[in-house]
Amino acid sequence: MSPTPTYDQLAATWTRMHHFGHLQSIAGWDQAANMPPRGNEARAAAMAEMAALLHRMSTAPELPGQLGQAAQEPLSALQRANLREMRRQWQAANALPSSLVERQQIAGARCEHAWRTQRPANDWAGFLENFRPLLALAREEAALLAAQTGLSKYDALMDRFEPGMTSAQVDRVFGEVRRWLPDLIRQVRERQAGRPPIEPVGPFPLPQQRALCEQVMRLLGFDFEAGRLDVSTHPFCGGVPEDVRMTTRFREDDFLGSLMGTVHETGHGRYEQNLPREVLGQPVAHARSMALHESQSLSFEMQLGSHPGFVARLAPLVAQAFGAQPAFEPANLQRLLTRVKPGLIRVDADEVTYPAHVILRYEIERPLIEGEIEPEDIPALWDAKMQELLGLDTRGNFKDGALQDVHWPSGLFGYFPCYSLGAMYAAQWFAAMRRAMPDLDARIAAGELEAVFGWLREHIWLQGSRWTTDELALRASGEVLNPAHFKAHLEARYLG
Amino acid sequence: MSPTPTYDQLAATWTRMHHFGHLQSIAGWDQAANMPPRGNEARAAAMAEMAALLHRMSTAPELPGQLGQAAQEPLSALQRANLREMRRQWQAANALPSSLVERQQIAGARCEHAWRTQRPANDWAGFLENFRPLLALAREEAALLAAQTGLSKYDALMDRFEPGMTSAQVDRVFGEVRRWLPDLIRQVRERQAGRPPIEPVGPFPLPQQRALCEQVMRLLGFDFEAGRLDVSTHPFCGGVPEDVRMTTRFREDDFLGSLMGTVHETGHGRYEQNLPREVLGQPVAHARSMALHESQSLSFEMQLGSHPGFVARLAPLVAQAFGAQPAFEPANLQRLLTRVKPGLIRVDADEVTYPAHVILRYEIERPLIEGEIEPEDIPALWDAKMQELLGLDTRGNFKDGALQDVHWPSGLFGYFPCYSLGAMYAAQWFAAMRRAMPDLDARIAAGELEAVFGWLREHIWLQGSRWTTDELALRASGEVLNPAHFKAHLEARYLG
Repeated sequence: MSPTPTYDQLAATWTRMHHFGHLQSIAGWDQAANMPPRGNEARAAAMAEMAALLHRMSTAPELPGQLGQAAQEPLSALQRANLREMRRQWQAANALPSSLVERQQIAGARCEHAWRTQRPANDWAGFLENFRPLLALAREEAALLAAQTGLSKYDALMDRFEPGMTSAQVDRVFGEVRRWLPDLIRQVRERQAGRPPIEPVGPFPLPQQRALCEQVMRLLGFDFEAGRLDVSTHPFCGGVPEDVRMTTRFREDDFLGSLMGTVHETGHGRYEQNLPREVLGQPVAHARSMALHESQSLSFEMQLGSHPGFVARLAPLVAQAFGAQPAFEPANLQRLLTRVKPGLIRVDADEVTYPAHVILRYEIERPLIEGEIEPEDIPALWDAKMQELLGLDTRGNFKDGALQDVHWPSGLFGYFPCYSLGAMYAAQWFAAMRRAMPDLDARIAAGELEAVFGWLREHIWLQGSRWTTDELALRASGEVLNPAHFKAHLEARYLG
Repeated sequence: MSPTPTYDQLAATWTRMHHFGHLQSIAGWDQAANMPPRGNEARAAAMAEMAALLHRMSTAPELPGQLGQAAQEPLSALQRANLREMRRQWQAANALPSSLVERQQIAGARCEHAWRTQRPANDWAGFLENFRPLLALAREEAALLAAQTGLSKYDALMDRFEPGMTSAQVDRVFGEVRRWLPDLIRQVRERQAGRPPIEPVGPFPLPQQRALCEQVMRLLGFDFEAGRLDVSTHPFCGGVPEDVRMTTRFREDDFLGSLMGTVHETGHGRYEQNLPREVLGQPVAHARSMALHESQSLSFEMQLGSHPGFVARLAPLVAQAFGAQPAFEPANLQRLLTRVKPGLIRVDADEVTYPAHVILRYEIERPLIEGEIEPEDIPALWDAKMQELLGLDTRGNFKDGALQDVHWPSGLFGYFPCYSLGAMYAAQWFAAMRRAMPDLDARIAAGELEAVFGWLREHIWLQGSRWTTDELALRASGEVLNPAHFKAHLEARYLG
């Protein structure tokens, strides 16, 4: 008999959930990439049935006893880390009464559905009617999670996406960035004012765009024997680690958006494809966190994808795909990819102004959840912070203001910080790489991208969820999250 | 409280299984149409997990009691038919000890895997080594099912695919066909000898082939809002009634194969898309049987697809897709689609010689299961029957003889008759349609295909599994299966 019989039982339970999750994930991808419209109702019913099954499995009454029992068994360090992650998943699944979850689903669906027409109509007052009850439920959830975890309410929500991250740490990090960002943006803008890039001239036929994206994915090491690229309205990286399903979307008048979007998703994809194979199906094999995942997509899109050495290799592929144009000269392509321009919309923001959008949202959603402000206070705060951080006037423009993101209308709070924390981790990884490989930039310019991938594989991908995020960052880079690397990166790239 | 509480519980159980079956079905389609090779192991594990769950659900200990209890409740006629089909599914799922099922899966996988190389190597002796134990297990299964059902062993196997069909009925039907078929083939061959069709000249580019197939599917009423056409190695019609996933395969040097294959699968697809919506998810909403399903694909491919009136409408679409050719003239296209030539391979056979291949297999697999002959006897029987039915010599040619089909190597017995029973039912449906609509052929020639679809929808599709096959045939056509209609169809089309 195994010396760890209870641990083995738990591992078998998680393997079963992994198998069911596989079908759920592929059906979810299919829903976005393939499903004809009239299939939706049946698919939704099937997905709900599977969600209910997985919920039953992760709230099974025997689990708490087994988790306690397994902790007494002689576990290896990896097994112990797995048990820690099992417990975290169990807590997440068991934290909320199902009546609250149901009320949240209904209120979120109602608010998001109405938002889809309220946003174009700039209807802030109409939005508030649905948003108030949704926020009340999110506060109820946060209070419950806070009581269980000992965290503050907002931290308890954020912890679901970024375990271990606290608003104290975010305050410190974002507070630093806040001090130098507006001035950095100003400097970059001044510097770029004199040399506008040449615009590419379309149309860019979709078959060529698709072929170019696949070519670049291969260059970036994506394994097409264990994944695919397809098309969906909202690009994402789905599927399972053994079969990664990336999606993108194409526009005939613009190729850079889908190309760099694909580079971004390829970072997510390679993380998934290289999670520790020998424990796949166990929680310890999962990607560490949302910020860590984002640190991989941004390592690909920003650190590597806009690196002058990489852009010089990308440029001839672009010219090959669409025919030579002045816009496709490496130096110009680089300028196109690093153009900085404050704007109202987060998802359209460049690398330098993006953190301003996230900091603003964090500074509003944290007090909103803590009950320090009310939904009525959002527009004034939004306007003030947009003015302060990006020098833009958004008064009365709700649709390009607080109504622009799907997160709040669907009841998602505590997620926004992950985007910028990911950008900062990515800069920190590349700083560590440069310390380990002083010739890193030359290697990238020479096309030796395995230097980057090998480091990420060893320090991030293969580590899965073995360590806490802080431990992982320490082991990989010698320090916990330090936004100085992000600042140094932006200065080197945009002012160097 | 509902007056049928136990029936309602059963219906809820079957709805849950329908939801899980949905995910299984979509994942199965994805496996064939999309999945990259390295995803296979994880997919197989996920599919096995789902199969185990569905097996547990359909062998749950409370089901027999519930089935008995529900029979005492005041059910409607439709509910009573549903209960009958629930019971049939329950019996199928509970008939065999899981140890036998496992041994069959292992023996079947081994035999089929080896067969993939033994067939090209013409290695009959090697095949027999794996086939003998597989047959022994099939006989064990047949004996168990026979004891439970009171049917003969072979009939018990056939009953899984074609409920209610007996070898007495097949003997009667195939016996009749056997009497007139060889002479009919001879007459058709003589008649066609003088006018060989003009061959189409390729290549036929795949995008045009795909567009043509989709155009013809629309002509045939396939609902692309509730289904798709994709590519897989072995064409099939999968997915779920609410979202039918058809596949085909394309060859640059031949378009007729995939075009008519698509017409065939469209028949399956429309049956699925038009099953009774209000009880979807319940067994009574399932397609009636394999022969009935095949009667739909063959109604589309043979009855309608090779109908001169339909071919006259198809011809200009073909010319539009690939450019005009003499081969695409309606009369010539018709000759290409109705060319009769005895050959060794069942799946390549034309409408007239196809039944000979099925009769031969039936006449071998029935005594094989009953223990009247042994595997060693197959080659001599095969040779004699090929000579007798099609006048072909196959001595020593195992790879184009008994090794040609995947059915026996994977342990599938009792299925073959469905193919030809389906062809006969299709002829019977069209005979009934002509009695109800004496101008049917003129309507088809005028493109009023809804005359055909409306009849099939009312009499077959919307009936689901409400009736036994004999009842369904009686209600639809006034008689149970009668092969005289098939004979009349062949004579009219090929000798008329």
